[in-house]
Amino acid sequence: MISLEDVKKARERIKDWIHETPLFSSATFSLWSGNEVYLKAENLQKSGAFKFRGAMNFMLSMDEEERKKGVVTGSSGNHGQALACAAKILGVKAIVVVPEDASSAKVAAIEGYGALVERCGRSSTERISRAMEIAEQRGMTFVPPFDHPWIMAGQGTTGLEILDELPDVDAVLVPCGGCGLISGVATALKESSKKVKVYGVEPERSNSTYLSLKAGHIVELKNIETIADGLRTASPGKITFPIVQKYVDDVLLVSEEEIKNTVLLLLERAKLLVEPSGAVPVAALLYGKVPFKSKKTVALMSGGNVDLLTLSKWIEESKA
Amino acid sequence: MISLEDVKKARERIKDWIHETPLFSSATFSLWSGNEVYLKAENLQKSGAFKFRGAMNFMLSMDEEERKKGVVTGSSGNHGQALACAAKILGVKAIVVVPEDASSAKVAAIEGYGALVERCGRSSTERISRAMEIAEQRGMTFVPPFDHPWIMAGQGTTGLEILDELPDVDAVLVPCGGCGLISGVATALKESSKKVKVYGVEPERSNSTYLSLKAGHIVELKNIETIADGLRTASPGKITFPIVQKYVDDVLLVSEEEIKNTVLLLLERAKLLVEPSGAVPVAALLYGKVPFKSKKTVALMSGGNVDLLTLSKWIEESKA
Repeated sequence: MISLEDVKKARERIKDWIHETPLFSSATFSLWSGNEVYLKAENLQKSGAFKFRGAMNFMLSMDEEERKKGVVTGSSGNHGQALACAAKILGVKAIVVVPEDASSAKVAAIEGYGALVERCGRSSTERISRAMEIAEQRGMTFVPPFDHPWIMAGQGTTGLEILDELPDVDAVLVPCGGCGLISGVATALKESSKKVKVYGVEPERSNSTYLSLKAGHIVELKNIETIADGLRTASPGKITFPIVQKYVDDVLLVSEEEIKNTVLLLLERAKLLVEPSGAVPVAALLYGKVPFKSKKTVALMSGGNVDLLTLSKWIEESKA
Repeated sequence: MISLEDVKKARERIKDWIHETPLFSSATFSLWSGNEVYLKAENLQKSGAFKFRGAMNFMLSMDEEERKKGVVTGSSGNHGQALACAAKILGVKAIVVVPEDASSAKVAAIEGYGALVERCGRSSTERISRAMEIAEQRGMTFVPPFDHPWIMAGQGTTGLEILDELPDVDAVLVPCGGCGLISGVATALKESSKKVKVYGVEPERSNSTYLSLKAGHIVELKNIETIADGLRTASPGKITFPIVQKYVDDVLLVSEEEIKNTVLLLLERAKLLVEPSGAVPVAALLYGKVPFKSKKTVALMSGGNVDLLTLSKWIEESKA
């Protein structure tokens, strides 16, 4: 378990390195959803996603001697980019193991930050094993994508920023994948405010946190297919899940069509590029999935890394 | 002429109605341009463009009796949307005259704010005449798109926000069309800071301010074709131009290709949807059009109203 104190320390540790991202009020989304809607724009974070906070907190928490030896991870997306970006800024060697079918855009982004890229298998299990193997062989440190107190505390700093700007917030909606983000944010919020509700949001097609909460234990999914590529996680983590059980009020589900439409609405109306995984909280608001009305509600938009060609395909489809 | 005092008063007048838009630092654009680059995100302003500031300042400066009778303008784009949006917020009747070939998206946006839309002709002269005629017939007030002190002072408030966040700014790059924005911003900046430089940016294909400055008098263009639809203005205004002559250090020009690429780069890297007219300052920075290096430079991104289908076409073309 992490505590509010851990999140506060993380904030102090990373504050000179991250963007404090803006919180936008939105008249349009408020009108459409029947709540007072605020958008927390983590898509504007360095490396394009909240993952940068956790990666930075992890690396700054490491022993200096260890850090000099370098870091390694397995990731198909935002965590890999975030670690590469943080490593570059701190002048540390980084290796990112990506799936064999990783898009050239993602590989180019990771390499653009100066990290080494190695391709291995297609499943998350394969690339994580390979990353741990590299870490052992080379004496580098393996940086897990979500299931680690340093990562969770780093992500939780987003929650403290929300409270600074909106101390009387009623509800915060957070995307759930491995639950690194929501476990940190819920800790920060629930240990600071008595009244705030915290909801997770998942794609219907990748609903492991929803199922795990109902079952009372971690449920693993196989063959996940959703456009929300950042949320294709088989299950919540062993360390994150108990916090979800303790603090998260409920998990809401949204469909693929709702996610895609919301990405386009955010672009057209809010002028922000938000990736499908980051758009799920706004989708929950717009498509009537939240169990309340007229509340000060923050949708945490976790990232903005979308391939532009994919985006253009969605635009064509929706306007056809 | 307007003065710094007028801009300060405008700011006081509109402050509860507008968004103070964020100023983002950008490591990527700084690296690429060789300057310390900041992005002033007026694409996140209400109605999607800076025009809202001027429209709001105009309406709040009007005599209350006059305001009750309503407002009317001729516009094919952001000014019409901004006036409709401001009128809705203040509970005032509004009519917007648009060209016969106005896109259904733009008409829908204006009508969405509750304004009446009338179609007339194709040229700006035709729709402005028609709007003035309506104003006279119905006792409503005509609100000009740029050439009016209240509009200019309203737009200038953007400059004051830049100075608040970055008091030691070296240079500010501003799109030029009718010069309502740059005349207000230059007044605010040059009358507050001795060292700041102000540059206009225009498309090569719509360079009336550039030509007018070189000629020493207003030069009018015909048959303007540029993707920067907000900058298809025949010439700077009679009231705005003397301020441009007094305060603007130079006007820089960018090509259609440079504008289009910059729109896509802003989307991909900054996660912001910026319209072509709003992207010209960033284009000037990225394509080496600025006559300096290593300076704290603000690119004023004036708006974000882009038709998504057009955007998707640009993406397809650029990735082909």
